[in-house]
Amino acid sequence: MKHREPGSEHDLLFTNRVPTGDSMPRDICDRCGFIHYDNPKIVVGAVVTHGDRFLLCRRAIEPRKGYWTLPAGFMEHGETTDEGARREAREEANAEIRIRDLLAIYNIPRIAQVQMMYRAELASPEFSAGPESLEVALFSWDEIPWDQLAFPSAYWALKQFRSVMDQVVIAPFSNPEGELANSFPFR
Amino acid sequence: MKHREPGSEHDLLFTNRVPTGDSMPRDICDRCGFIHYDNPKIVVGAVVTHGDRFLLCRRAIEPRKGYWTLPAGFMEHGETTDEGARREAREEANAEIRIRDLLAIYNIPRIAQVQMMYRAELASPEFSAGPESLEVALFSWDEIPWDQLAFPSAYWALKQFRSVMDQVVIAPFSNPEGELANSFPFR
Ligand SMILES: [Zn+2]
Ligand SMILES: [Zn+2]
Repeated sequence: MKHREPGSEHDLLFTNRVPTGDSMPRDICDRCGFIHYDNPKIVVGAVVTHGDRFLLCRRAIEPRKGYWTLPAGFMEHGETTDEGARREAREEANAEIRIRDLLAIYNIPRIAQVQMMYRAELASPEFSAGPESLEVALFSWDEIPWDQLAFPSAYWALKQFRSVMDQVVIAPFSNPEGELANSFPFR
Repeated sequence: MKHREPGSEHDLLFTNRVPTGDSMPRDICDRCGFIHYDNPKIVVGAVVTHGDRFLLCRRAIEPRKGYWTLPAGFMEHGETTDEGARREAREEANAEIRIRDLLAIYNIPRIAQVQMMYRAELASPEFSAGPESLEVALFSWDEIPWDQLAFPSAYWALKQFRSVMDQVVIAPFSNPEGELANSFPFR
């Protein structure tokens, strides 16, 4: 989490100690007393299908600029998780989606993220690149640019989606284990 | 989110504007430039059973001190959601639990919370009140102190748990609608 705006008055000097009334050590700004709580952040996104094709966005921004991913991003204040997933599809792909159910929850404690990925469908066959995408396209399973995917979680979500494609009721997946966990091209 | 420690040098004076490089207005501290991102926070907890009884904790702290609830609390940095649920059971009930699967995800945008409630079992029949609990007890369904429950989400989770008790694979619930949404005694 960014503490302050670029160019504001002081540098970041934190001391790690237990704040008054707290039970855990936190990074505390030596100058202004800001407490860096560093709560995990929620990423919301969706595997979006249209018939038997999958909606992917090619990233116009870092990290992983130029690589393909699912519409997903940080949940905002004042929205629900499914509203967030719909907003991200709107922002990144100018697409209206219908959320079906929860596909997976990925925990990535190293970067303090919890990612919630839904199963969803295009509400209409209209989409185009939003400001954070270079292009947006529908791919059949075999056309998916597997070696150009931006993030492991996009890879996991697509593979896990495919494994339960015909099931109406699913328990959401977690981080994969075994081969799927280790087969992402960029790990 | 608390910005600073009590007693530190300046009062909280925020201006709501769009920070450099951002796309949304945020509360920004007039003095030190701190950006109040206000991301939704994750609460993790569990409906914990032992045989046909349910583990509940009577709260030793506000809010809702003296009322009964499920072991649950804010997810911490560096842990996964299920590790967080296990930690909360340990902290509030000195109990080791085995997570089974995800029961429900409740969105409470008014207070910017996403609550993730698991189905879990006591790993051993040992428990006692942790520092945030006045007492911890196992209740049969009919003994649950329904009119002394602390929070709607504890009520929802218990009721939704009961409705799928015999199902091995479940799709997680969301916020209830209809009667269950409106029948919590304290709403
Ligand atoms: Zn500071
Ligand atoms: Zn400040």
